[in-house]
Amino acid sequence: MSQVTLADLNAASQSDFVAALGNVFEHSAWIAEAAVMRRPFGGVAALFGAMKDMVERASSERRMALIKAHPDLADKTQRAAGLTADSNAEQNSAGLDRLTDAEYDAFERVNNAYRAKFGFPYIVCVRRHTRDSILRDVERRLPNDAATEMGASIAEIFRIAALRLDQLVTASDRLPVNGRLSTHVLDTHNGKPAAGIAVELIELSELGEARVVTRAITNADGRTDRPLIGNRPVPLGRYELRFSVSRYFAERGVPLSDPPFLDQIPLRFSVSEPEGHLHVPLLVTPWGYTTYRGS
Amino acid sequence: MSQVTLADLNAASQSDFVAALGNVFEHSAWIAEAAVMRRPFGGVAALFGAMKDMVERASSERRMALIKAHPDLADKTQRAAGLTADSNAEQNSAGLDRLTDAEYDAFERVNNAYRAKFGFPYIVCVRRHTRDSILRDVERRLPNDAATEMGASIAEIFRIAALRLDQLVTASDRLPVNGRLSTHVLDTHNGKPAAGIAVELIELSELGEARVVTRAITNADGRTDRPLIGNRPVPLGRYELRFSVSRYFAERGVPLSDPPFLDQIPLRFSVSEPEGHLHVPLLVTPWGYTTYRGS
Amino acid sequence: MSQVTLADLNAASQSDFVAALGNVFEHSAWIAEAAVMRRPFGGVAALFGAMKDMVERASSERRMALIKAHPDLADKTQRAAGLTADSNAEQNSAGLDRLTDAEYDAFERVNNAYRAKFGFPYIVCVRRHTRDSILRDVERRLPNDAATEMGASIAEIFRIAALRLDQLVTASDRLPVNGRLSTHVLDTHNGKPAAGIAVELIELSELGEARVVTRAITNADGRTDRPLIGNRPVPLGRYELRFSVSRYFAERGVPLSDPPFLDQIPLRFSVSEPEGHLHVPLLVTPWGYTTYRGS
Amino acid sequence: MSQVTLADLNAASQSDFVAALGNVFEHSAWIAEAAVMRRPFGGVAALFGAMKDMVERASSERRMALIKAHPDLADKTQRAAGLTADSNAEQNSAGLDRLTDAEYDAFERVNNAYRAKFGFPYIVCVRRHTRDSILRDVERRLPNDAATEMGASIAEIFRIAALRLDQLVTASDRLPVNGRLSTHVLDTHNGKPAAGIAVELIELSELGEARVVTRAITNADGRTDRPLIGNRPVPLGRYELRFSVSRYFAERGVPLSDPPFLDQIPLRFSVSEPEGHLHVPLLVTPWGYTTYRGS
Repeated sequence: MSQVTLADLNAASQSDFVAALGNVFEHSAWIAEAAVMRRPFGGVAALFGAMKDMVERASSERRMALIKAHPDLADKTQRAAGLTADSNAEQNSAGLDRLTDAEYDAFERVNNAYRAKFGFPYIVCVRRHTRDSILRDVERRLPNDAATEMGASIAEIFRIAALRLDQLVTASDRLPVNGRLSTHVLDTHNGKPAAGIAVELIELSELGEARVVTRAITNADGRTDRPLIGNRPVPLGRYELRFSVSRYFAERGVPLSDPPFLDQIPLRFSVSEPEGHLHVPLLVTPWGYTTYRGS
Repeated sequence: MSQVTLADLNAASQSDFVAALGNVFEHSAWIAEAAVMRRPFGGVAALFGAMKDMVERASSERRMALIKAHPDLADKTQRAAGLTADSNAEQNSAGLDRLTDAEYDAFERVNNAYRAKFGFPYIVCVRRHTRDSILRDVERRLPNDAATEMGASIAEIFRIAALRLDQLVTASDRLPVNGRLSTHVLDTHNGKPAAGIAVELIELSELGEARVVTRAITNADGRTDRPLIGNRPVPLGRYELRFSVSRYFAERGVPLSDPPFLDQIPLRFSVSEPEGHLHVPLLVTPWGYTTYRGS
Repeated sequence: MSQVTLADLNAASQSDFVAALGNVFEHSAWIAEAAVMRRPFGGVAALFGAMKDMVERASSERRMALIKAHPDLADKTQRAAGLTADSNAEQNSAGLDRLTDAEYDAFERVNNAYRAKFGFPYIVCVRRHTRDSILRDVERRLPNDAATEMGASIAEIFRIAALRLDQLVTASDRLPVNGRLSTHVLDTHNGKPAAGIAVELIELSELGEARVVTRAITNADGRTDRPLIGNRPVPLGRYELRFSVSRYFAERGVPLSDPPFLDQIPLRFSVSEPEGHLHVPLLVTPWGYTTYRGS
Repeated sequence: MSQVTLADLNAASQSDFVAALGNVFEHSAWIAEAAVMRRPFGGVAALFGAMKDMVERASSERRMALIKAHPDLADKTQRAAGLTADSNAEQNSAGLDRLTDAEYDAFERVNNAYRAKFGFPYIVCVRRHTRDSILRDVERRLPNDAATEMGASIAEIFRIAALRLDQLVTASDRLPVNGRLSTHVLDTHNGKPAAGIAVELIELSELGEARVVTRAITNADGRTDRPLIGNRPVPLGRYELRFSVSRYFAERGVPLSDPPFLDQIPLRFSVSEPEGHLHVPLLVTPWGYTTYRGS
């Protein structure tokens, strides 16, 4: 997906504008076509506000059509044919292209139940989710009435659109769509940052297998060079951070028990704010540790 | 196994004494027969010292016979016929009666390699071990020479005998054969012991499946009514303690994120001193925790 | 003060009983004289209950006489002549015999104000207090009406009597009048209890000088041989515990900065439950520490 | 002291260059006069290197004259007449203009002893020191021989000069003469940064009175808007950070004991690296806290 500046969008022909932003809302270029009349935009937030406004002012038939323009979840992974490239990438980001059979069955079952009840597909901004949290979300929404779910669907569509727009358009402002997950290892045995610690971030799953999200080595400041998750929403879900500490201390000649009391330290936690900055540090000696939700 | 007092043993006929203690050393009643001449014993440590002395003064042929009187490890689980009841119970204590196929293969392979090299069975005091630590022990001992391994075998036989004697004889003193693993949960959100927390102790395994060692609920003092492991050696190995903290805080009306930042907290650690007192406490709020090796 | 057993009190002559317990309530032997009729007592709690009952059933004139039988606070330290030995020891326990001029002035001022308003002396169970907390208590009580203060005075008199009775009578039960303050130092640099750490407990004061309550050295288990405060109420007030940690680590060859980052660690806290068990541990490396209210 | 750019210095007349830098070394403009010949300088480090080089190549008589051009410590506060403005400001930075009598006596005594032994004044870079650490430094240096102290004096003169140069000249590079002391308060009761906490930094003193270095209130991120000490060396010495936590928790409706278990938390620590970044955070609930040397 190539990026475009807001200045260029403001200056572009109407058709170029629509070509650039036509898929910010899935299969619904009419929104970009309507928003183009509001140019120029002082920022990407103003542009997004205009597009949302078009949706909110549209007839309820048109909003329903927008909802129905979205694919079924997971099912998409089967019939990738009809998916936009954006939808495909989004679904893959949550691991929906790598479901176990049990997970796939669970997704299909709740999706079908949702469609059967409401007559439109279950829509969720998958970049904000893990497999577990999607199942949790749909189970929570299933008992709702149709009006509530139309509202919920539009809200999710706005989240999807905001993320697409953030990726597509560069401007002096940014939409508040991204979060960050970071860590920091302090060696309180030696009173300094712990450099060279192997860190693994694992996404846990109720139904399927745990999945390695990323691996990193702490730098001289005890941090990872890049956030564990950054420049995107931190998906809602359960995680485990694993720190290989016994090798670190052994290499520094610190006397350890055999086997070492602490070897690989797991920190298990959940993410509840995908757009927030979540910092999970570790203060560690060979004989104990402290962790907390930092910021 | 019925218990007997040291006073009764001091007063018993020689044959009753030997009947009571004949199997402290596997299939080797001659040791009790020799030790009986040293009566009376002022304590169980003195009794055990006399029995050890008999072994140490015996000819090397006799010591080798003692070694060969012991069963092969794990193999026993197959041919339980020839095992003493003590040996059987000991091996079961380490889970050797519930090995996965991969574990059983690993045990058989190293056992056979050991017997092939040295001409006598691999002996280890299994009550001090987990499946993992036995495999680690035999792999460390395999490169030794025969004299070293005869010494190591006798040392393990003494550990086995000490544990049997400790279970069998009550006296005013006790042999230092038992350790303890305990925990304590402090709620530093409310400044008091955390009562009613579900705690699970898991034995981890490289080859096979994790195994629940015990489950408990913390009492009003934040402790478990009995030690997690007590009145026996704490088996060498890797463990995970799991504390269900989100339910505890939720039941007390503490505001939590959704899902809660901390739900089930895992503490992973290794045991290196089976006869020691290992205390693994948890200081916890809904947003962070501290653990350390206490005493 | 010599102790007496409850059994002996149950069997004693009426006059011996009254002689033994006549001063449990200050200058008011009539309470013991009335309670003697209720013998025998199954426990010291029953005995105390009977004595309280006599006070509660007495006429309000008699209760006022009981109140007025008590000395003025602090003033007593000046005119020790008329004080019972018990009153004298109690007041000294709070340091009322060692007031600075500023403190003495403050005590005299509030005492006089209290007596001027209510017509009877300000009574408080001084063994449960520090100098600061007494001033705080009287300032909180001064705005009350007389009926409230008569009730408050009787409640304090019961606390004084319970403590005297606890010191005087041994029985199979005990009155819940004593608390405990303890500490524990864990060296999380080396993973073991910190032995040989010098610990100081200081009582802080708003008006006067800080006062050393006790000094101790941690034993092999990282604890002090006796509680810092024990077998008595822990006086309400502000305290500082000081731990000399740099010498401890230096003696063990741990590399430290020059000067050491942590030398004498102060933990400042308040006591709010004199009859409770307050545990204030320290988990420490040369580079950081953790403390918390334990139990 | 007005600042000048390195570019301007490179382009200035020789006399303007010397006028600007003549007092970088106390009363010793000859160093600037010699360094001017090395122009142009690519950075302030190169400029400083050239000035140091002039000193190192000078005759030992000249270096001794440089040493003797420096004032006596503290004495200066008395006879401020002969002090350069720089010297005066430096000495005031360590509080040498506000010594108690006991401190002044101690300073005079060691200064006189130093001058009597070596025949030149005791020189130290006071911006890197507190009153205590100066006394400690001079007592450590007094036993040295004269050659060692000439070397030590030149090293301190270089530190003084580097700090003056850093204040005086702006360039693309900076001399590594400044450190930083910072803090961060995490509320682990609520899982977020603690905003609005009053923080005090106190310099402790063996001989004299404690001195408030700075006061601040934590911001929304739990930090202070500016470092507690920054853009200068962090003076060697002992400090106490004080955090008023009970008001913070009370204002948020957190149930506390009466009086609150923790009210003002003191963290006492020493600074050993004036040019380093020292971070002293506090993780706190109403019932416990953790601190450590961070970075």
